Amino acid sequence: MTHTAIDLRTYLDEKREVVNHLIDRYLPPSDTDPPSLHQAMRYSALAGGKRLRPILAVASYEYCGGEDSENAQAIRYAMTALELVHTYSLIHDDLPCMDDDDLRRGQPTCHKKFNEAIAVLAGDALHDIAFELIARTGSTLAVVELAQAIGTLGMLGGQVADVEAEGKPVTQDDVIDIHRRKTGALIRCAVRLGAILAGADKPTLLKLTTYGEKTGLAFQIIDDILDIEGDPDKLGKKVGADTAKQKATYPAAVGLEQARRDADALINEAVSVFAADEENLLKSIALYIGQRRR
Amino acid sequence: MTHTAIDLRTYLDEKREVVNHLIDRYLPPSDTDPPSLHQAMRYSALAGGKRLRPILAVASYEYCGGEDSENAQAIRYAMTALELVHTYSLIHDDLPCMDDDDLRRGQPTCHKKFNEAIAVLAGDALHDIAFELIARTGSTLAVVELAQAIGTLGMLGGQVADVEAEGKPVTQDDVIDIHRRKTGALIRCAVRLGAILAGADKPTLLKLTTYGEKTGLAFQIIDDILDIEGDPDKLGKKVGADTAKQKATYPAAVGLEQARRDADALINEAVSVFAADEENLLKSIALYIGQRRR
Repeated sequence: MTHTAIDLRTYLDEKREVVNHLIDRYLPPSDTDPPSLHQAMRYSALAGGKRLRPILAVASYEYCGGEDSENAQAIRYAMTALELVHTYSLIHDDLPCMDDDDLRRGQPTCHKKFNEAIAVLAGDALHDIAFELIARTGSTLAVVELAQAIGTLGMLGGQVADVEAEGKPVTQDDVIDIHRRKTGALIRCAVRLGAILAGADKPTLLKLTTYGEKTGLAFQIIDDILDIEGDPDKLGKKVGADTAKQKATYPAAVGLEQARRDADALINEAVSVFAADEENLLKSIALYIGQRRR
Repeated sequence: MTHTAIDLRTYLDEKREVVNHLIDRYLPPSDTDPPSLHQAMRYSALAGGKRLRPILAVASYEYCGGEDSENAQAIRYAMTALELVHTYSLIHDDLPCMDDDDLRRGQPTCHKKFNEAIAVLAGDALHDIAFELIARTGSTLAVVELAQAIGTLGMLGGQVADVEAEGKPVTQDDVIDIHRRKTGALIRCAVRLGAILAGADKPTLLKLTTYGEKTGLAFQIIDDILDIEGDPDKLGKKVGADTAKQKATYPAAVGLEQARRDADALINEAVSVFAADEENLLKSIALYIGQRRR
């Protein structure tokens, strides 16, 4: 167990570095015309972060027999695309007309650092370049997979439902529905893209899809919990913002204790798609997400 | 000549109807959850418009031997994607933090009709679904072509340069550079996509690329001219907005008379990629753009 824990830490650190390098390589340099736009894109995309989505993609790819290396271009394009899409969604979510957040990962949000017009366009540009990169995998199936995960039936629909639920009483089912779309769809997509690019067979893809769905929902419930009881220094953002804005959160619907139990149960369901005695990194990552404190 | 003129009018009307049907078919129905988002997407995408970009794409496709029909799925996906991308760019350009426009095609702009958050997200959603559709052509080359045309070296870069040039003196070269990216890149892309999807050979693709570049630049210069001397009722928007905002326009850089002459010269260069005695629809469309009054 200690051995696996050390392995996981190393794995996460290594892959996070890979993702940072890839983003640096695939985004145009800061002095590319127009510099304000490229600076804003790089500022937000290279501001740190757990890089969870690309790490899940590559772990899923490796689980399905894919080999990650300098030459494994397809999975690396997909990893970069996933993180850039995530960054675009954060920049737009933070806008004054949306969540109106000033801080993200301990730094001023994009519209605070630059201005609102640049923030809208930097988000658009990251959205755009993500599709160029996912297309470079050579798989139009992968492009469609990504587009649907972040479209109106996925992430964007969830974001609208989230904004529209503010200040209203919501049921557990409402929150689960919002979370599945707003956060879950992209995490599920990350796991699926890894499997698709590794050429996984259908039973494996279905198994990993379930893993991605459970892990994605657990991730957002834990995010909600951390907004209540997390350490602002570790999180890099204020806590209590969800409560202040009367956001539709899972603890608001079922209480903090039940939220913790349900997150644990979801992580348990996620790892249960694998045999009980099987040790693998996807399992370790799900358990790590279940215990995260930032 | 009269015969060709009638043919062109019929062609434009027919293809515009095809585009309207395609948008209606490929956008989710208004009552799809969340309805506010889907209503906003349909409101902006189905608000009329010349449908110039998809019409150029299909005319280019037919010029290269492609046959447009109910079964010609690839070109029809591309046509829809081009118009949805154009609509997304208009919604974001109209936002208060950008051009802050209240009217578009004679109707309230998206953020006026709905709200700012919905307008940002409806733009994002149209951007997204455009990539799903272009991927459905089965050509990752087409996806990359579109992504690059509307990315930071194309349309988005041009939009930033345009916003940043407001109120500053600009040279003719500056304006040409902005126009080429902001408007020209997507029009060039439309012509190229039609050729690519029809399997055009390289010399034809290069010829049509030149046609697209000249036509695209002429189109935006004429747009600038119409903002000075156009009929607001025909245009569906206020005139004089560019001057009021001290926008980088071509007439502001070289004067109205020179702007008219240069637009004519560009249209002439566009049609000159074809033999002098050749009659075809791309030629007719370029001449039509040169004479447009709305």
